[in-house]
Amino acid sequence: MKISIESSLIQQEIQELALISEVEAPAVTRVVFGEQDLKARAWLIEKLRAVGLTVRIDAVGNTFARWQGSREDLAPVATGSHIDAIPHAGRFDGVVGVLGGLESIRALQRAGFRPTRSIDLIQFTAEEPTRFGIGCLGSRLLSGVLTSRVDNELVDSSGETLLSVRTKAGFSGDLQSVSLAPGTYSAFIELHIEQGPLLEREALTIGQVIAIAAPSSFRIIVEGHGGHAGATLMSGRRDALCAAAEIILSIESLASNSGAADTVGTVGICEVHPGAINSIPSRVKLGVDLRDIDGERRDKVLRGIEASAQEIGRRRSVQVHIEMLNADAPATSSPYILQAIETSCEEAKVKSRKMVSRAYHDSLFMSRIAPTAMIFIPCRDGISHRPDEYAKPADIASGVEVLARTLAKLAADPE
Amino acid sequence: MKISIESSLIQQEIQELALISEVEAPAVTRVVFGEQDLKARAWLIEKLRAVGLTVRIDAVGNTFARWQGSREDLAPVATGSHIDAIPHAGRFDGVVGVLGGLESIRALQRAGFRPTRSIDLIQFTAEEPTRFGIGCLGSRLLSGVLTSRVDNELVDSSGETLLSVRTKAGFSGDLQSVSLAPGTYSAFIELHIEQGPLLEREALTIGQVIAIAAPSSFRIIVEGHGGHAGATLMSGRRDALCAAAEIILSIESLASNSGAADTVGTVGICEVHPGAINSIPSRVKLGVDLRDIDGERRDKVLRGIEASAQEIGRRRSVQVHIEMLNADAPATSSPYILQAIETSCEEAKVKSRKMVSRAYHDSLFMSRIAPTAMIFIPCRDGISHRPDEYAKPADIASGVEVLARTLAKLAADPE
Repeated sequence: MKISIESSLIQQEIQELALISEVEAPAVTRVVFGEQDLKARAWLIEKLRAVGLTVRIDAVGNTFARWQGSREDLAPVATGSHIDAIPHAGRFDGVVGVLGGLESIRALQRAGFRPTRSIDLIQFTAEEPTRFGIGCLGSRLLSGVLTSRVDNELVDSSGETLLSVRTKAGFSGDLQSVSLAPGTYSAFIELHIEQGPLLEREALTIGQVIAIAAPSSFRIIVEGHGGHAGATLMSGRRDALCAAAEIILSIESLASNSGAADTVGTVGICEVHPGAINSIPSRVKLGVDLRDIDGERRDKVLRGIEASAQEIGRRRSVQVHIEMLNADAPATSSPYILQAIETSCEEAKVKSRKMVSRAYHDSLFMSRIAPTAMIFIPCRDGISHRPDEYAKPADIASGVEVLARTLAKLAADPE
Repeated sequence: MKISIESSLIQQEIQELALISEVEAPAVTRVVFGEQDLKARAWLIEKLRAVGLTVRIDAVGNTFARWQGSREDLAPVATGSHIDAIPHAGRFDGVVGVLGGLESIRALQRAGFRPTRSIDLIQFTAEEPTRFGIGCLGSRLLSGVLTSRVDNELVDSSGETLLSVRTKAGFSGDLQSVSLAPGTYSAFIELHIEQGPLLEREALTIGQVIAIAAPSSFRIIVEGHGGHAGATLMSGRRDALCAAAEIILSIESLASNSGAADTVGTVGICEVHPGAINSIPSRVKLGVDLRDIDGERRDKVLRGIEASAQEIGRRRSVQVHIEMLNADAPATSSPYILQAIETSCEEAKVKSRKMVSRAYHDSLFMSRIAPTAMIFIPCRDGISHRPDEYAKPADIASGVEVLARTLAKLAADPE
């Protein structure tokens, strides 16, 4: 099959979507159910309908655009990713999988391909944890990893529940209806930028993702004693921020010395109360992200962090409380899909390698209900979650071609 | 002279003022020129006028309520403090000096006292640094320590200038007109809670403040490299928060080991950018408060912090930039006023001692243009800048009596 990718069209669409943002270009911010996220969703749905796809939106805003296949009795194939963006992010994370998925369908349509299995393009709600503190909200619910209880349990920083926020955004209905049974899809494939330096360093175009690292995230709340910064002598202090500083350095050290380079630990959030220059911090809230391709090794580091934080708390006479947000298992890709990706790379004449994903993705949760694999393309200097995140147009086009060829193989298969 | 203090009236007024707050009781927040600060100012002015005082308000909102004396050719005596409150503060800091000053005037009126020198009760604008990052804004301008240039230089966290904020709040006019010449007042006395544990521990009612510690405050900005928390290996990171954590601990250590218990250093603000749980911090801004009763020793510690922060920056390959906000000299009280306070303590039959103030106050700046001293009363556990800040009604009444007696001596003096 001859596949031609309209690279300039993808580039134009990436650019258009980047401008739907809460902050000025080149930075992109789209927090889930915010005004710009809703605007981006409307923009996308128009594009999906323009190529003849049938759009269904579930109660949490996951959007499914179906290219109807000839055999309704066979489980469809799906691809997709997310379009929300953390504060001051770039243009490509998630977006390449959604707009690339759209172009792969257009390319197959232009090539005269007629799918046997239906092909769904999915835009997942809130892959980023910005608003509700938990990543992959949409795909977690879809795969049943989260239950509908979270509707009232998850609150944003203003104290508003998921139920209230999604209802106001126009996504009502029972959250229980979001989950899909295993077997609903025969395959799921996600195209994504690598968010790491490997492909660029080895001058390769495609990464065949064989596994996704096990992510976990948690909050550490440190409760000390406040007081006047001038009047309280150093010796009697129970400064919550000084204790938190020791915990931050302990997390860095434990993640760096796990015995494997694959362990990464990050404190991305540090909120200080009361937060006045002349007031001793009485309470600090840290947001921590810890992951590894080896779930057991990650859990060992996690236990080390817990022990170290408690020791610091005891020594400094401050209370330390740890609140787990999530601790997921790693995922292994489907050999059957990996084979289709590898053949597609050969047909597209692009150099590729097998690799693991250190970042996690909606694929981590889709793998719970469907055979899953991912296609990576290089990004400059491995940089992501920053305004200067960049992927070459040619690499994006190659990724879309490999995705299109893979979808064609999987959707043609009557098995 | 027989002086009777209406303790229940002061308590009622303290309670009324505490309820004019941005947050719920028992916490108090009144950020300068915010809605609640303006409401509190209006409430106070009504009280001042009700006892026959003539109110003048300057261009930055400093409020002067005059009890006219018989000799207009003599420089007036002044007392006063502030009513703004940092986020989640208590009811007494500053307020005791303003409402206590008011009751001291009422007590002298009831006692039939007629002042020779006029007595001014001053409510200073923004003693707290919350909004513009610098403490004692009103008294700094009044004493000429700050010039009118700050009108366009100082900005709040939303980027609005002092000029714009004060104009919207109804305080227009040239900021140059705020400064008063040395000699404008013959004496300034400030009644305040100790904000430390000394008086309570020694079961004393009054502290005669002989000196005020030299405060300084500065920002440390750390610029590192951001990136995806999952995909960036530990070894290549330039995490701004990890560097900031080391700096926080270095400040704690240098302040604790200056050789004197009088050195105190506090990091009260730690702002992380971008502040997402799955994003490596690229920029951190710390707000630091460092003070000592010995200005030279403080400056030595300050230089130590600078050197240590730069060393941490070099070692971790992150940029460290230090921005001084203020570094003031210590103040010594007027022996003449201290003598009047001591005599007043004897007359009021309260136990007192001489002591230093580790916290700074508007008195630090008033001492630049007038003989100045402070009167301290105990507060529970030395706690301040917290909702559970507490001073006993009897101690407040005693402080007000000592203030009234001191004002009477100074205002009666034809010298």
